[in-house]
Amino acid sequence: MNATPKSERLHIAIFGRRNAGKSSIINALTNQNVALVSDVAGTTTDPVYKAMELLPIGPVVFIDTAGIDDVGELGQMRVKKTYEVLNKTDLAVLVVDSSTGIGDYEKELLNKIREKKVPVVGVINKTDLHNISDEVLKAWEKDLGINFVRVSAVSKSGISNLKRAIVVNAPYDDTEMSIVGDLVRDGQIAVLVVPIDKAAPKGRLILPQQQVIRDLLDHDAIAVVTKEHELKRTLESLNQKPALVITDSQAFLKVDADTPKDIPMTSFSILFARYKGDLNQLVAGAKAIEALKPGDKVLIAEACTHHRQSDDIATVKIPRWLRQLVGGDLEFHWVSGGDFPDNLQEYRLIVHCGGCMINRREMMYRLSVAAEKGVPIVNYGVLIAYVMGVLDRALDPFPLASMTFKGLI
Amino acid sequence: MNATPKSERLHIAIFGRRNAGKSSIINALTNQNVALVSDVAGTTTDPVYKAMELLPIGPVVFIDTAGIDDVGELGQMRVKKTYEVLNKTDLAVLVVDSSTGIGDYEKELLNKIREKKVPVVGVINKTDLHNISDEVLKAWEKDLGINFVRVSAVSKSGISNLKRAIVVNAPYDDTEMSIVGDLVRDGQIAVLVVPIDKAAPKGRLILPQQQVIRDLLDHDAIAVVTKEHELKRTLESLNQKPALVITDSQAFLKVDADTPKDIPMTSFSILFARYKGDLNQLVAGAKAIEALKPGDKVLIAEACTHHRQSDDIATVKIPRWLRQLVGGDLEFHWVSGGDFPDNLQEYRLIVHCGGCMINRREMMYRLSVAAEKGVPIVNYGVLIAYVMGVLDRALDPFPLASMTFKGLI
Repeated sequence: MNATPKSERLHIAIFGRRNAGKSSIINALTNQNVALVSDVAGTTTDPVYKAMELLPIGPVVFIDTAGIDDVGELGQMRVKKTYEVLNKTDLAVLVVDSSTGIGDYEKELLNKIREKKVPVVGVINKTDLHNISDEVLKAWEKDLGINFVRVSAVSKSGISNLKRAIVVNAPYDDTEMSIVGDLVRDGQIAVLVVPIDKAAPKGRLILPQQQVIRDLLDHDAIAVVTKEHELKRTLESLNQKPALVITDSQAFLKVDADTPKDIPMTSFSILFARYKGDLNQLVAGAKAIEALKPGDKVLIAEACTHHRQSDDIATVKIPRWLRQLVGGDLEFHWVSGGDFPDNLQEYRLIVHCGGCMINRREMMYRLSVAAEKGVPIVNYGVLIAYVMGVLDRALDPFPLASMTFKGLI
Repeated sequence: MNATPKSERLHIAIFGRRNAGKSSIINALTNQNVALVSDVAGTTTDPVYKAMELLPIGPVVFIDTAGIDDVGELGQMRVKKTYEVLNKTDLAVLVVDSSTGIGDYEKELLNKIREKKVPVVGVINKTDLHNISDEVLKAWEKDLGINFVRVSAVSKSGISNLKRAIVVNAPYDDTEMSIVGDLVRDGQIAVLVVPIDKAAPKGRLILPQQQVIRDLLDHDAIAVVTKEHELKRTLESLNQKPALVITDSQAFLKVDADTPKDIPMTSFSILFARYKGDLNQLVAGAKAIEALKPGDKVLIAEACTHHRQSDDIATVKIPRWLRQLVGGDLEFHWVSGGDFPDNLQEYRLIVHCGGCMINRREMMYRLSVAAEKGVPIVNYGVLIAYVMGVLDRALDPFPLASMTFKGLI
């Protein structure tokens, strides 16, 4: 990791008044699951750099701007230093002492941060000494136009929330990510199986279907879209073997049956499990189902709250499937939004939603938290393929995940 | 038209206090471009029915609820009568006298109309006698939760706006409309040519493309989606001749060249010209370009306002194309949103946008206004096909429009 040059690391600069606790926050972050790599002491006016590995982002460097003070107005020299740090900042963290509160210092600083179009995470520190009410926090957030995370660098409370806020708000380049473009080459055909049921929005395609078609076109490939009942006829009408058949999970069994064995087949959900997260980790999570015993605790986690339907997947279908597979009852708990519970290590399995409403960064963060605690995690799409007995085939296009599933690695 | 039974006509009931001018409004509407068919006089307490043809809706019947009064609270008998009328009302028109204003009478009536889930158009009448300010109108609209059209039944001002409001708000059943499902049968293939340029939204498909794919699936057909550069290869990879090739207008010439002559070809724009309006009328509008002479007035109408790009179609491309076709300058005027100008008959041609933001009803209304004034109207999509010299071929799937274009009907 020391081989990663500082310039290629994500630069996270910590701003705030002299006694707000900037250095303690960096220490709390580094002690919690990040490896401290170097500690280059600066002069009294120069910022201090701390390089470390922050999962799932990778190598980052925290910049402790201890030299920037809050005494009176920002002087010429201080403004210059702030600007200099901002020029190399990818994400700014603004630390506020809960007992001092906000004022012109924070507003001026935020103006300068915004001029540079740098994303900001707000932190209220020292909540062990002086906690503030939700009303006050909301007023501060409205006044400054940023969101705050409550933290105590001393007691470590809120540090995992802060880490999550940093991960989610850090800029990243996803232009190299491809949903399916690496599996279907120039001029090749992918067949998309799109069942039309009552839940399908009238006159439209749902976003994942659009994204797959668009990704195929972006890679000079051809998308053939059909319903499950026309799949056989569709395959017969092609005189070029499709590179891939992609189905909605609800038609998995029919599509498995109707797709010749020499044509690779997977699901939209598995493509997005890979695009949004780490397919290998999720497949390892599916494999962990085999080790579940009656009485084990299973956490079912959804990234957002939504109206539950009568045959809801989280509360009805998944518990039913897992009980059948285990041959006995399990202890199910459910969470939605935000963080995992503190007692995460008590669970034998986490079943996570597909994360359609969160970005890759946030899903990767959740996966990294599960990995840190040593809890297997699977998502809905991979679980459904596993339950239906088609995961083996659906992983063929993904050699590493396939080897994971077969227990070869 | 007398053959249309009353029960199959759209029922438009006119509500309002005794002297609000309900009957005059019906008379103004019937005198303006609608044919009065029957005038069944009722008793003093029974409503009066007037059947007529209201384009583009077709046969309607106005119900003059003169029997419902505004004296004091609505009595038992009056309430019963109101309910009886509402039970057969498809659209309610609430007439308010501008000098009387609104009160509990209107609120009670609206509550009853809303209970029946009937759409409402509000009318402020007698604006020739007493006009009201925008502020007062807005306050009334906010108070009642409906929009008002200012009208004078006597001077006829505002009557065309009222007609438009009735047309746009009247309920209608579009479930029988098909974008493309009548052209591509069960198990047949349509090839969709979707160029990906900088203007295409990242990672998505635009709505018309989604709608066409979805309509094909809804009709058990197969959608093959490809870029223009892969079209040849795509057609070679099919061993079933596609029933239709549908292209984005910007790739018209390449797709025309790369699609064998025995495969029907058209554009998304032409499909939507038919779906949203009257393709025959728009094709007749394209034909009228041949009769344009230098100096003629051309109206370019867009349904909504949007940011104009440097090579804007309305202000740059269409004027350039038409000048080239006519071989001289033309007098262009532009309008956006709302109604056509009053002097519509002075124009030799109307060029209308595709109307992506308005519904079929509103587009049909605009077409009917152009037809009434005897002004040819074409839309962007049909015009582009005409300018590129491919309209003839692109109309082959539509026999009537094709015959219109060839001057056979």
